[in-house]
Amino acid sequence: MDCKKALEEAEGNIDKAIDGLRKKGIAKAAKRADKIAAEGLVYSYIHGNGKIGVLLELNCETDFVAKTDKFKDLAHDVAMHIAASAPKYLNREEVLAEEIAKEKEVYSEQLKNEGKPAEMIEKILEGKINKFYGEICLLEQPFIKDEDNTVEQVLVQASSEIGEKVTLRRFARYELGEGIEKKACDFAEEVAEQMG
Amino acid sequence: MDCKKALEEAEGNIDKAIDGLRKKGIAKAAKRADKIAAEGLVYSYIHGNGKIGVLLELNCETDFVAKTDKFKDLAHDVAMHIAASAPKYLNREEVLAEEIAKEKEVYSEQLKNEGKPAEMIEKILEGKINKFYGEICLLEQPFIKDEDNTVEQVLVQASSEIGEKVTLRRFARYELGEGIEKKACDFAEEVAEQMG
Repeated sequence: MDCKKALEEAEGNIDKAIDGLRKKGIAKAAKRADKIAAEGLVYSYIHGNGKIGVLLELNCETDFVAKTDKFKDLAHDVAMHIAASAPKYLNREEVLAEEIAKEKEVYSEQLKNEGKPAEMIEKILEGKINKFYGEICLLEQPFIKDEDNTVEQVLVQASSEIGEKVTLRRFARYELGEGIEKKACDFAEEVAEQMG
Repeated sequence: MDCKKALEEAEGNIDKAIDGLRKKGIAKAAKRADKIAAEGLVYSYIHGNGKIGVLLELNCETDFVAKTDKFKDLAHDVAMHIAASAPKYLNREEVLAEEIAKEKEVYSEQLKNEGKPAEMIEKILEGKINKFYGEICLLEQPFIKDEDNTVEQVLVQASSEIGEKVTLRRFARYELGEGIEKKACDFAEEVAEQMG
């Protein structure tokens, strides 16, 4: 859309249109947004001899960039971040609606109990939910190696430095035994129990 | 349930009950089924310098077994298998109902076109769907290092050799760029197109 507008403003002159976009500082970003980042690395990081594992796909536009140390280091840093910060989702779009509805309910109950007026609750709720997204979504989390920036901002910076669109497409994080109830009950115990 | 029945048959004598179960060859399996496999390894395997990546959680009952070479080798072999065989699901329970419904529709249409009688179609369909499960479910796939056995059978064998319940709980497999349309369209091209 920016391109179209710029072209109209430049009366159909491509160079002039690009100049116009450049002035607005969006030419490079626009160029990258049109590119498809289908190269890159599938990268893994295992922590604590197999206690935590992370798998991710970090994309760029060319195989050339994917092979650079800078790109590999970025993949490693993001994998380390995921291991440490345990995000549940990549971004807001992935968060289940029920999870947000549940959080909203809990918060608004809290706020009511604190005696907050109804007209304030909606406003406070918005802030609370944004904070919640920031905790569970990888791209919104403060980056462990540079807490002034979110993971998304780190990727945008890398993109700008590398000169290619850089995106984190997906990740998985497994923690050994998470969710498995740790009650061991062997056969002898069960038999003993059944005997009364 | 097996335990209870065995106990009844042995008139409440535990040793006799265990003997009875052993004779039926299910004592060891029963014992393991009661245990909870919450130890093990989160293991990863990266193929082709980051073109394919696998992450899995292989569970056993004790940290001691998790640290053995035998267990590590098993985790590695299963990860290699996943990289090579590209299963979509762990087991039948994970397969989406719509996916099976779609397959059934396609198969039954094929069979009708081949002029198969209606009473045969249901029977053939069952076989076709079983084969389909065997292709997309990791635990039902023939193991790459021993194609006479499924991955599940290999895990059961390992379980029996190791003497602990061994289960594969989950896996992820990423292939670089899969699903991303590979048409690159840079800014100049887009502008040119908009110019007609």
